[in-house]
Amino acid sequence: MSHSLITPRTLQGFRDHLPQTMLVRERLMETARGVFRSYGFSPIDTPALEYAEILTGKGSEETDRQMFRFKHGDRDVAMRFDLTVPLARFTAQHLAVVGTPFKRYHIAPVWRGERPQRGRYREFVQCDFDTIGTESNAADIETMLVIHDLLVALGFERFTIRVNNRLILNGVLSQLGLLDQSVGVLRALDKLAKTSVDEVVAEMVKQVGATEAQARQVLELANPQITLDQLQTMLAGNETGQQGIRNLRELFRTAELVGIPSERLALDVSIARGLDYYTGTIYETFLTDLPTIGSICSGGRYDNLAGLYTRERLPGVGASLGLDRLLGAMEVLNLLGPVTTPAPVLVTQFDAERLGEYMRIARTLRASGINVEVYPDAKKLGKQLQYADRKGFRLALIAGSDEFGKGVWQVKNLSSGEATLVAETDLVTAIQSQLV
Amino acid sequence: MSHSLITPRTLQGFRDHLPQTMLVRERLMETARGVFRSYGFSPIDTPALEYAEILTGKGSEETDRQMFRFKHGDRDVAMRFDLTVPLARFTAQHLAVVGTPFKRYHIAPVWRGERPQRGRYREFVQCDFDTIGTESNAADIETMLVIHDLLVALGFERFTIRVNNRLILNGVLSQLGLLDQSVGVLRALDKLAKTSVDEVVAEMVKQVGATEAQARQVLELANPQITLDQLQTMLAGNETGQQGIRNLRELFRTAELVGIPSERLALDVSIARGLDYYTGTIYETFLTDLPTIGSICSGGRYDNLAGLYTRERLPGVGASLGLDRLLGAMEVLNLLGPVTTPAPVLVTQFDAERLGEYMRIARTLRASGINVEVYPDAKKLGKQLQYADRKGFRLALIAGSDEFGKGVWQVKNLSSGEATLVAETDLVTAIQSQLV
Repeated sequence: MSHSLITPRTLQGFRDHLPQTMLVRERLMETARGVFRSYGFSPIDTPALEYAEILTGKGSEETDRQMFRFKHGDRDVAMRFDLTVPLARFTAQHLAVVGTPFKRYHIAPVWRGERPQRGRYREFVQCDFDTIGTESNAADIETMLVIHDLLVALGFERFTIRVNNRLILNGVLSQLGLLDQSVGVLRALDKLAKTSVDEVVAEMVKQVGATEAQARQVLELANPQITLDQLQTMLAGNETGQQGIRNLRELFRTAELVGIPSERLALDVSIARGLDYYTGTIYETFLTDLPTIGSICSGGRYDNLAGLYTRERLPGVGASLGLDRLLGAMEVLNLLGPVTTPAPVLVTQFDAERLGEYMRIARTLRASGINVEVYPDAKKLGKQLQYADRKGFRLALIAGSDEFGKGVWQVKNLSSGEATLVAETDLVTAIQSQLV
Repeated sequence: MSHSLITPRTLQGFRDHLPQTMLVRERLMETARGVFRSYGFSPIDTPALEYAEILTGKGSEETDRQMFRFKHGDRDVAMRFDLTVPLARFTAQHLAVVGTPFKRYHIAPVWRGERPQRGRYREFVQCDFDTIGTESNAADIETMLVIHDLLVALGFERFTIRVNNRLILNGVLSQLGLLDQSVGVLRALDKLAKTSVDEVVAEMVKQVGATEAQARQVLELANPQITLDQLQTMLAGNETGQQGIRNLRELFRTAELVGIPSERLALDVSIARGLDYYTGTIYETFLTDLPTIGSICSGGRYDNLAGLYTRERLPGVGASLGLDRLLGAMEVLNLLGPVTTPAPVLVTQFDAERLGEYMRIARTLRASGINVEVYPDAKKLGKQLQYADRKGFRLALIAGSDEFGKGVWQVKNLSSGEATLVAETDLVTAIQSQLV
């Protein structure tokens, strides 16, 4: 074979997931599924490819440009760039079957053609969950509880879910007579992290036509120390604002009642991100030990999910976990081990003639829930143990004619190097105790 | 909002997965992952999009035509149509990191632009597992064991794994001096299911240039009653053939030793499918109660996985589970229930003021591993119970001021209609006993 080789490579912005990361990704996804299901959310899946008109319907020019879009035959098709548009299309299409309230989760890859940057990829997995067809604040509260339980189940203890409610901002803007300029106000407010208060005020005056006094009142919202009591006074007589405050009060009260540690939940009236899309509660979630990566689980309440596809009004609330961003955080926080095998035990092949015996003992261990690999070749034992070390196995089983004659197995602990002889009848117990 | 609506629909050959099917699909995938891991196979993932040259490298004209292929910028890209070509590219690219033996599984969607037929889709999930970098028959035997354990874990009892070995056919052909014509012989042999013995003989004579006696000898292989002993005699003195027989003997002997029921494993020398790709053991798996859907798990041994991308020779063995085909079979065999909720318990909202209490009890139950949904609105109880019935919940919890006053919960069994009052301290136990 002297043909020329094709260089094995992936497209720019795409990547392979090797066992070490993939074992963790699968664990994260399984954990997320378990938490979603424990609250009665059901899984759905939708096609990777859709009619482009479905996907562009809602998109801004930016998402349009980001799509992997092409002709298939005479059809204009595109790969999904998020899980929200497919959810809207799905719900409109299957509403009669799924009914409401409809609680779904969806864990799947999405594709964006944007210029890839460090840590940003053109293919990444989203984990979304939503409750559709109810305006009840109970669903908003539950969304916060799911985010909380999700992070705890994923192994995080130090994090804060920051909540806001769009109605509070609406109330302030309506009191100031600026409700019609809310998009411009939000755009200015959103720059606060990057620039000074005075510049934000100047922008509100110039772009939105607010007075300086109005602008400074809007900016009071961005004060991280502000309380619901203060807001209640600020917004006295404004029913929209008071409704937002009541909903957040119920959320905090319920959180306390069900035992959510208070440091994991905070009011943050400055969350402006997504405020032009969301209409009620808004969530962002930050890791205390790694705030710089930004929110790892965000979401909110919206008035009408699928207005492009159905005249049925579908209010809902939900959030999205950034799986790959979280994985990046776990890498930085050193929460990932070096293990590249899902099996802790390697049965070595000391004597090729005994293959059946090695396979039999492996099955016995598997029947007790212990994952076991049998080394495929009867290579030198040193080679096999080297493989075990490299892969991160914890125990190796070794048996030759001596051991078979006595009905025992040699159990070698690969971190301590210690080897013990164990009678076959005691093997499951002995291994389980070493794996604890 | 009087804008015109976009019709919500999926592309031809694509489909949504609703909760009822998706709950089962997820269970199947989780089960498969569990079995793969229990043998030490590790997960990997590769991009949905690859350079078209990578994917076409190995393809026949047919797979080329079937690809979703398009230009992205100036790059010629395509969506993967199987998991084997990406595995070959992956292994060539990451060989230094993953090392050998490399045992991987990959559960992911693939896309084919072929004309969709009944029960065939343009997007479907494949579950592949392979052991790469060893020629040891131990890996072939293990592949059979994994297929077996996979089907048992998925809930099947009545099935047969049919095994063959390409070396046997090679031996027969070399004895007859037909080795160079093996592709033509296989093509003729493969038609046996659809046509008569005489016509196959005629084709071998005409297309391959075999004598009629030679053709009839090849066809003896297709006799379903043939034994390894008979083959050993037929192939006396032919080392290639004897090697194939020895490998199959070791496979059957090991299966018996580790306790695989004999009716689940059968020699079938007539398996010709894939014989021009595989070089050693070959597997096909049929459900006893639904043989017509064809093999649901197939695979085999190959000499060199990634010759297009690396000069390193990579022998391997593996198989692929047809997840969606299996799901179709389970539908036909009535193995799927009507449940569309992953939670068996619904906490109703009798009194909106008590939301915190409903959420607290739900968390208590979740902490004991019971999946619980809280109905989001304090609608009429009848409406909430109707929802519970439709979704397939098994128990509903109800509590108003009476119950709260007494510290009890009403537990309503939704199949029997029976309601009992249970003290909160006994609730977990009472619910667990009703859910058994």
